[in-house]
Amino acid sequence: MYDYDLLVLGSGPSGQKAAIAAAKLGRRVGVVDRRDMIGGVCINTGTVPSKTLREAVLYLSGMSQRDLYGSSYRLKEEITVGDLAARTQHVISRQTDVIRNQLARNRVTLITGTGRFADPHTIWVDGESGQESRVTFDKAIIAAGTRPARPDSVEFDERTIVDSDGVINLEAIPRSMVVVGAGVIGMEYASMFAALGTKVTVVERRDRMLDFCDEEVVESLKYHLRDLSVTFRFGEEVAAVEKHESAALCVLKSGKKIVADTVMYSAGRQGQTDKLALEAAGLQADRRGRITVDANYRTAVENIYAVGDVIGFPALASTSMEQGRIAAQHACGEPVRALNELQPIGIYTIPEISFVGKTEEQLTESSTPFEVGIARYRELARGQIVGDSYGMLKLLVSPADGRLLGVHVFGTGATEIVHIGQTVMGCGGTVDYLIDAVFNYPTLAEAYKVAALDASNKIRNIVRIEG
Amino acid sequence: MYDYDLLVLGSGPSGQKAAIAAAKLGRRVGVVDRRDMIGGVCINTGTVPSKTLREAVLYLSGMSQRDLYGSSYRLKEEITVGDLAARTQHVISRQTDVIRNQLARNRVTLITGTGRFADPHTIWVDGESGQESRVTFDKAIIAAGTRPARPDSVEFDERTIVDSDGVINLEAIPRSMVVVGAGVIGMEYASMFAALGTKVTVVERRDRMLDFCDEEVVESLKYHLRDLSVTFRFGEEVAAVEKHESAALCVLKSGKKIVADTVMYSAGRQGQTDKLALEAAGLQADRRGRITVDANYRTAVENIYAVGDVIGFPALASTSMEQGRIAAQHACGEPVRALNELQPIGIYTIPEISFVGKTEEQLTESSTPFEVGIARYRELARGQIVGDSYGMLKLLVSPADGRLLGVHVFGTGATEIVHIGQTVMGCGGTVDYLIDAVFNYPTLAEAYKVAALDASNKIRNIVRIEG
Repeated sequence: MYDYDLLVLGSGPSGQKAAIAAAKLGRRVGVVDRRDMIGGVCINTGTVPSKTLREAVLYLSGMSQRDLYGSSYRLKEEITVGDLAARTQHVISRQTDVIRNQLARNRVTLITGTGRFADPHTIWVDGESGQESRVTFDKAIIAAGTRPARPDSVEFDERTIVDSDGVINLEAIPRSMVVVGAGVIGMEYASMFAALGTKVTVVERRDRMLDFCDEEVVESLKYHLRDLSVTFRFGEEVAAVEKHESAALCVLKSGKKIVADTVMYSAGRQGQTDKLALEAAGLQADRRGRITVDANYRTAVENIYAVGDVIGFPALASTSMEQGRIAAQHACGEPVRALNELQPIGIYTIPEISFVGKTEEQLTESSTPFEVGIARYRELARGQIVGDSYGMLKLLVSPADGRLLGVHVFGTGATEIVHIGQTVMGCGGTVDYLIDAVFNYPTLAEAYKVAALDASNKIRNIVRIEG
Repeated sequence: MYDYDLLVLGSGPSGQKAAIAAAKLGRRVGVVDRRDMIGGVCINTGTVPSKTLREAVLYLSGMSQRDLYGSSYRLKEEITVGDLAARTQHVISRQTDVIRNQLARNRVTLITGTGRFADPHTIWVDGESGQESRVTFDKAIIAAGTRPARPDSVEFDERTIVDSDGVINLEAIPRSMVVVGAGVIGMEYASMFAALGTKVTVVERRDRMLDFCDEEVVESLKYHLRDLSVTFRFGEEVAAVEKHESAALCVLKSGKKIVADTVMYSAGRQGQTDKLALEAAGLQADRRGRITVDANYRTAVENIYAVGDVIGFPALASTSMEQGRIAAQHACGEPVRALNELQPIGIYTIPEISFVGKTEEQLTESSTPFEVGIARYRELARGQIVGDSYGMLKLLVSPADGRLLGVHVFGTGATEIVHIGQTVMGCGGTVDYLIDAVFNYPTLAEAYKVAALDASNKIRNIVRIEG
């Protein structure tokens, strides 16, 4: 008999949910992770610290209040890294406790150390006090996560040149910063530092950013960031970073030079598979350390699955959790409910972005007619109360049957209220549901009613003209 | 021909929506209100100022951050009424602009002054510069609102003894306060002043409060308010308030005495019908100034309707707006969509409360079986990030078919996220939708998934036992 029915490598969102799902099915489950990495990158260096930092930045910089108290308003004249870090540490340690408790309550064994495969049913765990132990299992789920990709040519020093994991440990808030890579992580940090008063330059190889999002929303984000003195350099690449006494000098391939206290690389992430000895299990990773899986998240080796960031896109905690659950159910031979089609995307820039369903571009591409309904926060009582004059909600509505094809939100609470539209979509409702619904007053949720009326009036006018 | 197809008396939420609905149907519409009351009590002395004040209190008192920065944390040591009032004035003036624009855009004529009926098709408008004009109309909608009821025996002086409209004009934040009446308005102000450090005593004639809400939620609210030094005196009445040099002395019928800088009465509201000369139109109001209407909001006089607070319960802006729309459509002879069954209730106490559907008490009363699913914010990453350790979401689920029977939320964002559950209910979804849904991470909306799993596991265990 194996030591465990299911062994999970990694305790991030996908690993946790996989372990708990299998445990709830009565399986004996073990989770392997380093003591200081319980909760994975999500809790320790990624999602949770960055969102906590963001909340602290919003609060301490008075960012959310400037529309009400004037643009020079900030709570703390000098925000220190200490102000920001205290809060982050507090949340990390609590969240780690929550995860430990959840695992313990479900009788999942936490094995601390680093695992590497000995064969398809065995791993070696390198414990933290030097001992090595052998653990056997029937099924395994690899949920090893990723780390920031680091170009070989760049000398990271954790002070002047950092990656997106290192940025949360900066000793001081830089006066100026170059962010290399305008992906989700890059833009989240760019907007946070801009809100803190750092002069940010974003350098992006491609000529667009966040191109899976609504174009209007991305343009609004750029507009707001420029307003916070962010400079965008699209279609440009960093050729070299020279470290000088007082700052770094970033040289672009086009010859431009940028002086910055800090250079942050956020140019993709790399699967953490190099120490797993995948070959001993008969597996291999691709060039970016990623593992290929089928629709049930099974790898090329029958008893081994992989989930979460280590399998690539979309690499969001929300989706990864679902992948973990599905893989565990499949591994346990239980009926599996497929991954929900409606995958919301949440981007915690300042202002924040969230959407679900299709974009205008996608619908136009597929020749699917749609009408647009828009609500602006500044017309809502709640928008004015929270001082959000720029937020907006956009509904893409099918003129044929009133179904929602897409929901795009920009501004305060976007990641929360997007779920109202998602629920309409997921439960088969139409724009009429939103028109008739009663919303609490004053809320941002009222935007749904305003946008639904807008779309519906436009559709009615077309019908009228057509006679 | 009449001057207007529809005349609306009052420009609060119900009046605005009535006017705009009729204007969109091509009718000539006029709205009568005093220049300084555009938007009604909602904008000028009620909902909007109190919610704005609440937002300022939460922010400036550091209330929302105490779980993270320690319980003695506050941003401003001395919060002045000026800090609070500036923000409120700003929001009121912007919101008034929004309403004026919306009316103008829809070609609704704003008639400034106070209206009183001459006959069922005519009013006299007492203009603000003394002139009087006569306006005729085919249909009328009375949306005159309410004002705080003032017991005759009490000498209001707008300084020591105020009502809930006067409280926003206090010159200083009182060190101690007696709140008479533990209704929604009383509790909203009690919690705001408690958050500002005022010693609050709530005196309520009945032995319960907010008894249309979930009992567990109300008990949590009481617990949190006691933690902020609020004292509750249920089943007690104020016999007399004596004004002394430095403070007021509140004497209860039981003989207890309470010293307080300020006494605030929030003991019900009175319909503002006394100056309308209702009898000239063939109408009359009840003892509390309220007007009786039928299911279409029509009064006893065929061409006159009444909507909003002036017709009584629930007297919420959200519901009043729907009433306005329905009355206008009916008055214009258009097909009317009935008032939505799902009326969310939002209470902006600190912490806030919102719910939709039934309470446990109601379901037990009607012998409707239900299972409870609970999620606590402190187990959610987002709960910890925003420092909300007390929030919770409770779903009441039908074990027979998984439908949601009630959604109760206590804590940060309650009034917003309640609409996710409301949408499940309104679009015919079940608890399974929530189990399968993907939520942005980290959000408070994730509470739905946790609570849905909790309820579903309990239901499954019962089914299992029953074999």
